[in-house]
Amino acid sequence: MIIVPEREIADLMTREAAFEAVEKVFAAMAAGDAYNFPVVREAIGHEDALYGFKGGFDQAGLTLGLKAGGYWPNNLEKRDIINHQSTVFLFDPDTGKAKAMVGGNLLTALRTAAASSVSIKHLARKDAKVLGMVGAGHQATFQLRAALEQRKFEKVIGWNYHPEMLPNIEKVAKEAGVPFEAVELDSMAEADVIISITSSFDATLMADHVGAGCHVACMGTDTKGKQEVEAALLQKATVFTDEVAQSISIGEAQHAISEGLITEGDVHQIGAVINGTHPGRTSDDEITLFDGTGVGLQDLAVAASVVDLAVEQGRAIEVDF
Amino acid sequence: MIIVPEREIADLMTREAAFEAVEKVFAAMAAGDAYNFPVVREAIGHEDALYGFKGGFDQAGLTLGLKAGGYWPNNLEKRDIINHQSTVFLFDPDTGKAKAMVGGNLLTALRTAAASSVSIKHLARKDAKVLGMVGAGHQATFQLRAALEQRKFEKVIGWNYHPEMLPNIEKVAKEAGVPFEAVELDSMAEADVIISITSSFDATLMADHVGAGCHVACMGTDTKGKQEVEAALLQKATVFTDEVAQSISIGEAQHAISEGLITEGDVHQIGAVINGTHPGRTSDDEITLFDGTGVGLQDLAVAASVVDLAVEQGRAIEVDF
Repeated sequence: MIIVPEREIADLMTREAAFEAVEKVFAAMAAGDAYNFPVVREAIGHEDALYGFKGGFDQAGLTLGLKAGGYWPNNLEKRDIINHQSTVFLFDPDTGKAKAMVGGNLLTALRTAAASSVSIKHLARKDAKVLGMVGAGHQATFQLRAALEQRKFEKVIGWNYHPEMLPNIEKVAKEAGVPFEAVELDSMAEADVIISITSSFDATLMADHVGAGCHVACMGTDTKGKQEVEAALLQKATVFTDEVAQSISIGEAQHAISEGLITEGDVHQIGAVINGTHPGRTSDDEITLFDGTGVGLQDLAVAASVVDLAVEQGRAIEVDF
Repeated sequence: MIIVPEREIADLMTREAAFEAVEKVFAAMAAGDAYNFPVVREAIGHEDALYGFKGGFDQAGLTLGLKAGGYWPNNLEKRDIINHQSTVFLFDPDTGKAKAMVGGNLLTALRTAAASSVSIKHLARKDAKVLGMVGAGHQATFQLRAALEQRKFEKVIGWNYHPEMLPNIEKVAKEAGVPFEAVELDSMAEADVIISITSSFDATLMADHVGAGCHVACMGTDTKGKQEVEAALLQKATVFTDEVAQSISIGEAQHAISEGLITEGDVHQIGAVINGTHPGRTSDDEITLFDGTGVGLQDLAVAASVVDLAVEQGRAIEVDF
């Protein structure tokens, strides 16, 4: 039994490893080699916490297990620890025995950032120059950092409901040597790639805020009722997602579906593009949209990857379990 | 983070501690202080394995977490390890952080045995003398050992589909100093308590095999389609269970319900008897029946108990997670 504590993840895990793990598992999902289990998510009636399990099995990577944990909204104020708390448990698919336990907090941020990056690699125009950020919270910094590695971006433009948070992402852009500009939402039309990473229950980014040929990654909608972009944008765009069932029920596509603007058949697995069974973007004018809902298999994939790195570097704790 | 490996459980956990933990959590469930989460159970398409999660939260005992694992039917033959493999993970309900990891194999056997014992304590006649066993497999030995502590039994009678397995339970009876007799099913009418612990898809114990005043604990039905006793027996008996929703859908009551012989309102929580909010047995002639379907909260309760014992006795492995 291998244990990789949360404090080790930052030194061990790389954006490259997270990208590779997430790209591979999206491909396995689309090939029918990997699937997610039903999600358990419970308001436990204690500390206002949401707790649950996201499990799955990847037969290609032989990764089996779950992420357990959730959202404890009083953690930061009461205890000075982060509100999102999660742990990943991996099992040996040959025997059912517990195999590894891995801190899941930083991994969740990295796998979410990797997902939008995978979508940019496979769907954005090769000559994309302007990257737009809608949202400037903690997770936005991860999305931006990973995205900047996918194209030769010459400018980052950013908008946030609370403009005083924009320095969070400005800092990341500057560290990467890319100029940053705070803009109004209608200036997003200039962007070749937009990442939306907000926690909103109303559309922020409208269809006419998005220019021809843009790739939009919507990374903030993972619950019924949440919404980041106008449903009409999904009608204009070619829509991709990590998992279709989640996209149309709790992801960004839920609204366009319920308004009858698109059907389930209009939502494609990003893994199919990776595998070459879907052409992806077919013209420079096409708008592509990736709905990143977040699936358990992503967590398992990055956890398996960090376990390998910990073992290689002699930093895994081994317990005879 | 505390770790209690499987190999430590046999020395640490006692039948008394398991009994106490299970009795307490059944009481908490009936009082509305503890609830089980939806069960995830997946045929993963690898090694013919069934894998899943049973979680729950006990606000009274402040126990939060899950049992993960399942059934790997080729383990014994291919690898000489047992087919049922499970691990219990406990979380701190105040913060969402992982708190303990405990081997779940022996604990599962002990908590299942404790459940029928709790039902005997609260529902069998005080003067019960003859204990009937239907089933003589590995788990039957646990049920019998625990049951013998609940009343002054003077005889154990046993039946099994494969009579050559009866020595398994004969041995346990003899160790407890109680005579054992192999019988035909119709002789079960002599028993004051019957424990049925088989894995069957057809009724074995019929209503006329059960005498007046008997308490029957059905411990083997946890899946749609499984059945141990004739549905008519549930109509004749006062029916109790660990969790009503499970009893009527995947437990022994599923058949009597679907045949219209009883309704959901006829199935009572054993915890209500423990709490004194249901009178339980009200006459010496009444047949009582406990449908033990097995819930995640039982696993969490015994795991929390063994963690306490491991810490007290200085046998817990502590990992800075």
